[in-house]
Amino acid sequence: MLHPQSFDVIVVGGGHAGTEAALAAARMGCTTLLLTHNIETLGQMSCNPSIGGIGKGHLVKEVDALGGAMAAATDEAGIQFRILNGSKGPAVRATRAQADRILYKAAIRHRLENQPNLWLFQQAVDDLTVESDGQRERVTGAVTQAGIRFRGKTVVLTAGTFLDGRIHIGLQNHSAGRAGDPPAVTLSARLKELKLPQGRLKTGTPPRIDGRSIDFSQLTEQPGDLDPVPVFSFLGSASQHPRQVPCWITHTNAQTHAIIRSGFDRSPMFTGVIEGVGPRYCPSIEDKVNRFADKDSHQIFLEPEGLTTHEFYPNGISTSLPFDIQLPALHSMPGLQNAHILRPGYAIEYDFFDPRELTASFETRAIGGLFFAGQINGTTGYEEAAAQGLFAGANAALQARGLEPLRLGRDQAYLGVLVDDLITKGVSEPYRMFTSRAEFRLQLREDNADARLTEIGRGLGLVDEQRWAAFNRKREAVARTAEALKRCWVNPSVLAAADAERLLGKAIEHEYNLADLLRRPGVDFNGVVAVAGAAGVHLPVSRETLAAELGETLAATVVEQVEIATKYAGYIGKQVDDVARAAHFEHLKLPADLDYSQVKALSFEVRQKLGRHRPETLGQASRLSGVTPAAISLLLVHLKKGRFQGFVDAAAASAAAAQDAA
Amino acid sequence: MLHPQSFDVIVVGGGHAGTEAALAAARMGCTTLLLTHNIETLGQMSCNPSIGGIGKGHLVKEVDALGGAMAAATDEAGIQFRILNGSKGPAVRATRAQADRILYKAAIRHRLENQPNLWLFQQAVDDLTVESDGQRERVTGAVTQAGIRFRGKTVVLTAGTFLDGRIHIGLQNHSAGRAGDPPAVTLSARLKELKLPQGRLKTGTPPRIDGRSIDFSQLTEQPGDLDPVPVFSFLGSASQHPRQVPCWITHTNAQTHAIIRSGFDRSPMFTGVIEGVGPRYCPSIEDKVNRFADKDSHQIFLEPEGLTTHEFYPNGISTSLPFDIQLPALHSMPGLQNAHILRPGYAIEYDFFDPRELTASFETRAIGGLFFAGQINGTTGYEEAAAQGLFAGANAALQARGLEPLRLGRDQAYLGVLVDDLITKGVSEPYRMFTSRAEFRLQLREDNADARLTEIGRGLGLVDEQRWAAFNRKREAVARTAEALKRCWVNPSVLAAADAERLLGKAIEHEYNLADLLRRPGVDFNGVVAVAGAAGVHLPVSRETLAAELGETLAATVVEQVEIATKYAGYIGKQVDDVARAAHFEHLKLPADLDYSQVKALSFEVRQKLGRHRPETLGQASRLSGVTPAAISLLLVHLKKGRFQGFVDAAAASAAAAQDAA
Repeated sequence: MLHPQSFDVIVVGGGHAGTEAALAAARMGCTTLLLTHNIETLGQMSCNPSIGGIGKGHLVKEVDALGGAMAAATDEAGIQFRILNGSKGPAVRATRAQADRILYKAAIRHRLENQPNLWLFQQAVDDLTVESDGQRERVTGAVTQAGIRFRGKTVVLTAGTFLDGRIHIGLQNHSAGRAGDPPAVTLSARLKELKLPQGRLKTGTPPRIDGRSIDFSQLTEQPGDLDPVPVFSFLGSASQHPRQVPCWITHTNAQTHAIIRSGFDRSPMFTGVIEGVGPRYCPSIEDKVNRFADKDSHQIFLEPEGLTTHEFYPNGISTSLPFDIQLPALHSMPGLQNAHILRPGYAIEYDFFDPRELTASFETRAIGGLFFAGQINGTTGYEEAAAQGLFAGANAALQARGLEPLRLGRDQAYLGVLVDDLITKGVSEPYRMFTSRAEFRLQLREDNADARLTEIGRGLGLVDEQRWAAFNRKREAVARTAEALKRCWVNPSVLAAADAERLLGKAIEHEYNLADLLRRPGVDFNGVVAVAGAAGVHLPVSRETLAAELGETLAATVVEQVEIATKYAGYIGKQVDDVARAAHFEHLKLPADLDYSQVKALSFEVRQKLGRHRPETLGQASRLSGVTPAAISLLLVHLKKGRFQGFVDAAAASAAAAQDAA
Repeated sequence: MLHPQSFDVIVVGGGHAGTEAALAAARMGCTTLLLTHNIETLGQMSCNPSIGGIGKGHLVKEVDALGGAMAAATDEAGIQFRILNGSKGPAVRATRAQADRILYKAAIRHRLENQPNLWLFQQAVDDLTVESDGQRERVTGAVTQAGIRFRGKTVVLTAGTFLDGRIHIGLQNHSAGRAGDPPAVTLSARLKELKLPQGRLKTGTPPRIDGRSIDFSQLTEQPGDLDPVPVFSFLGSASQHPRQVPCWITHTNAQTHAIIRSGFDRSPMFTGVIEGVGPRYCPSIEDKVNRFADKDSHQIFLEPEGLTTHEFYPNGISTSLPFDIQLPALHSMPGLQNAHILRPGYAIEYDFFDPRELTASFETRAIGGLFFAGQINGTTGYEEAAAQGLFAGANAALQARGLEPLRLGRDQAYLGVLVDDLITKGVSEPYRMFTSRAEFRLQLREDNADARLTEIGRGLGLVDEQRWAAFNRKREAVARTAEALKRCWVNPSVLAAADAERLLGKAIEHEYNLADLLRRPGVDFNGVVAVAGAAGVHLPVSRETLAAELGETLAATVVEQVEIATKYAGYIGKQVDDVARAAHFEHLKLPADLDYSQVKALSFEVRQKLGRHRPETLGQASRLSGVTPAAISLLLVHLKKGRFQGFVDAAAASAAAAQDAA
């Protein structure tokens, strides 16, 4: 039967990608339907109980800056927060939190249930409906297991590990979407019929341990940052956090590794039972023991799964070895001699689709209106999934309303890097984010995700009044504070040499404004405020005035922004120039009707590659593997000579823009 | 692989039966393993968000009196409590609560995770291991989906609706354990191989509604009892309850019924697609419309699913009609004109096993050490499942320790009635409890479940120190109070006629003790305390002294016990006599080696029936359908004449006991 209500956007799947997609589309005012096989599992953390980390934390902050749910839910559910790389430069600093699974799920479900324009419906999806206009196929809706047909202008598919999912423990395996959940077999078959290019990937999870059987006295305690406790959302505060608890550290040893090696002949990975490729950067313990044979110890973090459970997640020993290897391997580690396994570790193989067959808005090239997000695109990680979900959801919403798609450049956001990497390079293993993937990472920081994205989000309707007001309050305070520092001058006649030495390390030789002084190593905001005080010059701001006006949390972020912007102004300025220069190529749109086979100047292989992937911009073309800078130059010459429709104008405009910026 | 730890009791399934079974065995000190396909779904309420009701509330109180979890978890999770039949006699008064699903699940999981001697392990069970000693097969453990073998002295199987479960919505159907969960297909096939007699039943659930789409202004509010708010557990108090909320009432109408009838041709029930029989006393809406064609309205209760969700459960419209009938049928009711369905209603068919093939301890006759509890025995309802779970778990524990099984008589507990009904009469449709099933219901009240069972539970190790101490405190206070009333005499010379008329309705004509006066209609405990006061005679107890000593909650139950015991003493005494007389037959053990085919005095049919069911006592034999009182007399004669081993003695002893009691 056809459901009487029809929707702008239908989202299939209720994990991290699906929830952000559905929330985003609904925030933008589109009537949105979220279809899930089980409402009870909305927002479930299927693997580790943590959010963030280097590169990943950046994505979470970006999702937050665009009004998404993940950071705010983590603030409500986080039981340990840490700033990683705290002593390093701001570009690689990242927030990481352990989350209570039950609280996290509750926080997400609360948002989903209370989001205007969003409807939930519980039932597995077995099929998509597709119509052809003669030229191209277009999705028109989704069909559930019981044959209920929902009509949607666009569909976002976020199937996670469910598509033809198969769980492996040793040489035993069975169909499943994840432990305890049924797989999506019919939908997988149907997508294959639709001839979307598909492959297999695998991911894994460790055994879970009953904390009552752990001897904590043999472990090293790892507390979170407690003074102050970090906060994830730009709108969050530490007062939202539940009780904070520590993690614990143990380690594998030679005996552990011997036990693990003794299971290699029954490992589904090493015996070829698993055909899908696993995540290189989140390897299973057998993979680590095999690849790094010279290392005889790996650190294992025992992460609490929540405040109301004794369950622990041993981060670092994801495995698909047989259970009779898992158990003694665990028992060989300090503190785990009597550990009781509550859930065995396992690997899961699932379908993914080649993301090079997606446009830059995450729409499938083959089927109009059909968007993919999350693990189905070959990624791994909650944060990568959430970011893609938000992006695909927003683009589905824009298309449903007949508007231009959202594009985010590699210089604007990790989300831009993520999308561009996926659609241009594709994946040969599950893709996860690293700061090293971003060439402009100095300006893609966690701390300025709001400055980079909230205004864009506001324009799209993703950002609500409250966030917009808070953002503007912060932006205004940052600008005002920075301006005040620049306008406040001190010179040797007002700043005693002794004060200068105490506060700045040495006397000043001529007149400086406070922004100049702040740029010096070892000098911080409070330092230059003290300089003004010692010099007896009026400075209208201080940490105290900001705290009185904005509250402690916001005041601290304002000060942080002023410090970073001032101290790194030189580097950041240089990177802005690099970006502008790169933009000349980056945004040059390639003609949609260009027949690459006719570009004789290019090698046959490059012509084939470009013809197959049809990059949308010259920037994308340049990042295809095998497409050399020389080939790009030749292509550019060809395009200019051919005076392709709109191309020369666009090229001229791009060049002008680059000049302006330089 | 064989798991290195071996267990006294293995419980398969983590629903209401499985959790009570596992907790009971562990409380009794047995090493116990609970195997579940998903730890996240432990304690899940798969159908309505409520616990208790007439007959069912009685079971919950009995489970509580034996130290079980259900009542206490409901006290922590209940968002509306009511005493049903509050104005009727105490035997049919019953407690009923709406429960917040998430809080209920959390309360159960907390108990499971913190129960000493209990281990949890997540994985579906595919097989049982069975060994034969040449005479009889005996279970030795269970095997999970990944081939992990657990050894157990006994196994309790509580598979709910999962065995070969199949969900029906209209003429569409698919395999599932319940909505969102995979079925247990392999285990079902394996049990069939073991030749356990099996059949199919079905049950159903209504569509769930998004509360944001309900117009409450058109509904009738149904608040809970608020002064006082009832409490479920004998150890509970209203201060444990979360915020209390109302239910809402709407009703079907002629239009609703017309819509429902229009779907009959696509009803899986009416078209024969479903072969399993459904619960007669919890019929689907299509069943009601069909069977009671003259009724043109049924009351529908909209029950909140929790404090943190907008979801509502429309109690009374369980259905497996196609979704295109469900939706307009709902929309035809007041307040639901724009209702959004979050989850469609459905029916589920599943395997059950003939409970007549169980012994009186719920062990299967075919396979030693294998116990069944819950829906697998052909019952319906959380409460019926929990009670059976506790019973089977306790008996598995007793057997594992080589002790005699627990038997509960029909005169001792609804649990006794439940067990006896199942094993003697079997089921032709899902069995639910009613007070009318208990012939001795005057003494099987909710209020005295502790007096009936807590001492038995203490003897078995089911009842912990805290409950035992609280029970004794109450029992002692009841006895002391009742005794004080009996010892306090008033006569016309000390009680003024005016006082007597005011307090008792008329003057007293001679000397009475307060217990005599309390027996009068319209006189309650406070009334006789006032009589003592007016007469100036010393009475050492009052509601105030009890409250000061025991707290308000316990004081109220003490007063209630004294009132009921005094007022109904005559009826209860008569029932005790009835029980004693019945016991003569009831407990007469039939010889295990009796060859019924040789009892020529009996009809061929009766001989066959007795031979097949092999009742353990004459009481059980008398309740087999088709076994007449005349047949029982003939059997008795046969047994006496045959002087079967130990029989005559037992018969003599039973007769003597009956005489003593009479």
